[in-house]
Amino acid sequence: MSRSHPSVAIVGASGAVGTELIACLQQRRFPLRQLRLFASSRSAGRRLAYGGDSLPVEELTEQALIGTEIALFSAGSATSRRFVPPAVRAGTVVIDNSAAYRMDAEVPLVVPEVNADAIAAHRGVIANPNCVAIIAVVPLWPLHQAFGIRRIIAATYQAASGAGAAAMQELRDSTRAALAGEPFSPKVLRHPYAFNLFSHDTAVDPETGANEEEIKVARELRKIMGAPQLRISITCIRVPVLRAHAVALNVEFERAVPADAARALLAQAPGVRVVDDVGANHFPMPVEASGQGDVLVGRIRADASDPSGHSLALFVAGDQLLKGAALNAVQIAERL
Amino acid sequence: MSRSHPSVAIVGASGAVGTELIACLQQRRFPLRQLRLFASSRSAGRRLAYGGDSLPVEELTEQALIGTEIALFSAGSATSRRFVPPAVRAGTVVIDNSAAYRMDAEVPLVVPEVNADAIAAHRGVIANPNCVAIIAVVPLWPLHQAFGIRRIIAATYQAASGAGAAAMQELRDSTRAALAGEPFSPKVLRHPYAFNLFSHDTAVDPETGANEEEIKVARELRKIMGAPQLRISITCIRVPVLRAHAVALNVEFERAVPADAARALLAQAPGVRVVDDVGANHFPMPVEASGQGDVLVGRIRADASDPSGHSLALFVAGDQLLKGAALNAVQIAERL
Repeated sequence: MSRSHPSVAIVGASGAVGTELIACLQQRRFPLRQLRLFASSRSAGRRLAYGGDSLPVEELTEQALIGTEIALFSAGSATSRRFVPPAVRAGTVVIDNSAAYRMDAEVPLVVPEVNADAIAAHRGVIANPNCVAIIAVVPLWPLHQAFGIRRIIAATYQAASGAGAAAMQELRDSTRAALAGEPFSPKVLRHPYAFNLFSHDTAVDPETGANEEEIKVARELRKIMGAPQLRISITCIRVPVLRAHAVALNVEFERAVPADAARALLAQAPGVRVVDDVGANHFPMPVEASGQGDVLVGRIRADASDPSGHSLALFVAGDQLLKGAALNAVQIAERL
Repeated sequence: MSRSHPSVAIVGASGAVGTELIACLQQRRFPLRQLRLFASSRSAGRRLAYGGDSLPVEELTEQALIGTEIALFSAGSATSRRFVPPAVRAGTVVIDNSAAYRMDAEVPLVVPEVNADAIAAHRGVIANPNCVAIIAVVPLWPLHQAFGIRRIIAATYQAASGAGAAAMQELRDSTRAALAGEPFSPKVLRHPYAFNLFSHDTAVDPETGANEEEIKVARELRKIMGAPQLRISITCIRVPVLRAHAVALNVEFERAVPADAARALLAQAPGVRVVDDVGANHFPMPVEASGQGDVLVGRIRADASDPSGHSLALFVAGDQLLKGAALNAVQIAERL
């Protein structure tokens, strides 16, 4: 490994996203001089595989990142608020997967397929967007550039992974209990998850009726696309799926949009795979999006409720842990 | 049992909806003189419980319904097309749960909370609507009467039960296999179902891109509401839930609609239960809708993408087998 390659750290290395960050760095042969792994005291002392090595998991302290050039944070907003500022002061560039700095005017919020050029303006922190925002914006961006998006109405089908590895395990455990006819008390999520779905369990703003997830997705989509006036309505629902999110999108454009033109554009868009086989009834599915870097897009059709021909309906699915989190962060690191 | 009470038959008695039809007649103490149960030759000869009795399941023939005053059909369109016309000619009134006659101009398509008055015009057949159409129209109707619906954008979260008892079993079996790390080949549905979701697997019209389910729901909503010009866009998705459908609805109205006014109206609407507790993050969920006759409605809020205040967003859940099918049919029978 060349001396000119950066020293990289992963903060939150033992979590669902952290595990994928390690895998992404490895699979993409990210050029690095050294990789250090950090997690909470509960996980510190464990060892995790990287390449042929096994690396120790260290406990994060304010001095621990000194000498690290790039740190990938994915340990929640509280950890980021505490440890990112000293790391940046010490010269580390942080790619932060938490929501802590995403809406900070000085912090670029980046999906490389959309606004990679925003990375250059960073002052030490680059934010990795919310997973639904990433998965939706990858196919929306080429459509926006060509036809100008006015309004988005979205309904999500969000996987357990968005709530972390423990939520994925709770989905498995509660489903196993339901199949056996045994009782199960939710510990990680506040609602029963086996063969059930529920409104995203973040706090709801009593004024607008929107929950925190919906507010994040709408704000972040506007920031990533540089479209502060974009009108967005979104309903975020957690479904009993393990690790890929899906989104039903109804999109109104400035200009008329034939479905075939949209499909042709999406077929050549970076990070997108069109899965829209009407004959075989084959459309985006979470099981097929899982483990894939691309966002799958299908059910591309004229919105039947807009006779002007200015609206489309689409259905998309993307791996929440990969493009929705770890892969996007590593793609940002690659651009640095 | 009084001699004036009707003789009733259930066709498709051993299916998922048939089982619920028997239970609904019993629980609602439907006044009947005799109950006869019919199914395919595969199920004929079995006995099913009704009240304290055990009734034989008979094979349906063209003469079998002679003397039956009310027949509840739930055995698919092919069975209805073959056996409903002779039954009607012999004087039986049929309440048909299949799609065979729903769009027939002479056939009333009835949700009692909405258009019970249409029943009187029947000529022997009354159609029970598609389950998504029923579950959506129960809360939409009072809003339509008060504010005038112009446009509906819907995304569904449909349960296994809509594809029948065998699909429910396939969801259980495939999930059990997935948890055990064993392979599973779908037999009933064409896509993997364990921890997965997929676009409703009915045929897609290559012209419009809509699938048959979406076409049914849109047409039937217009017919039930007597609103032939209503603009509707719907995306129908099958989710790994057992027996209650949910729908995310964005609705545009002729008049401005404050969310509080909509909530107050829905709180007193027949067949609706408002579940909209922002503080407790408690909203409609399939597990709570299952076994309930009411449609649960929550997440009632202004649509953030329509600054005119003419649009609402809602999230609803209803038992697909009860209000979505069996209960609605029995409620129609009660009005006869």
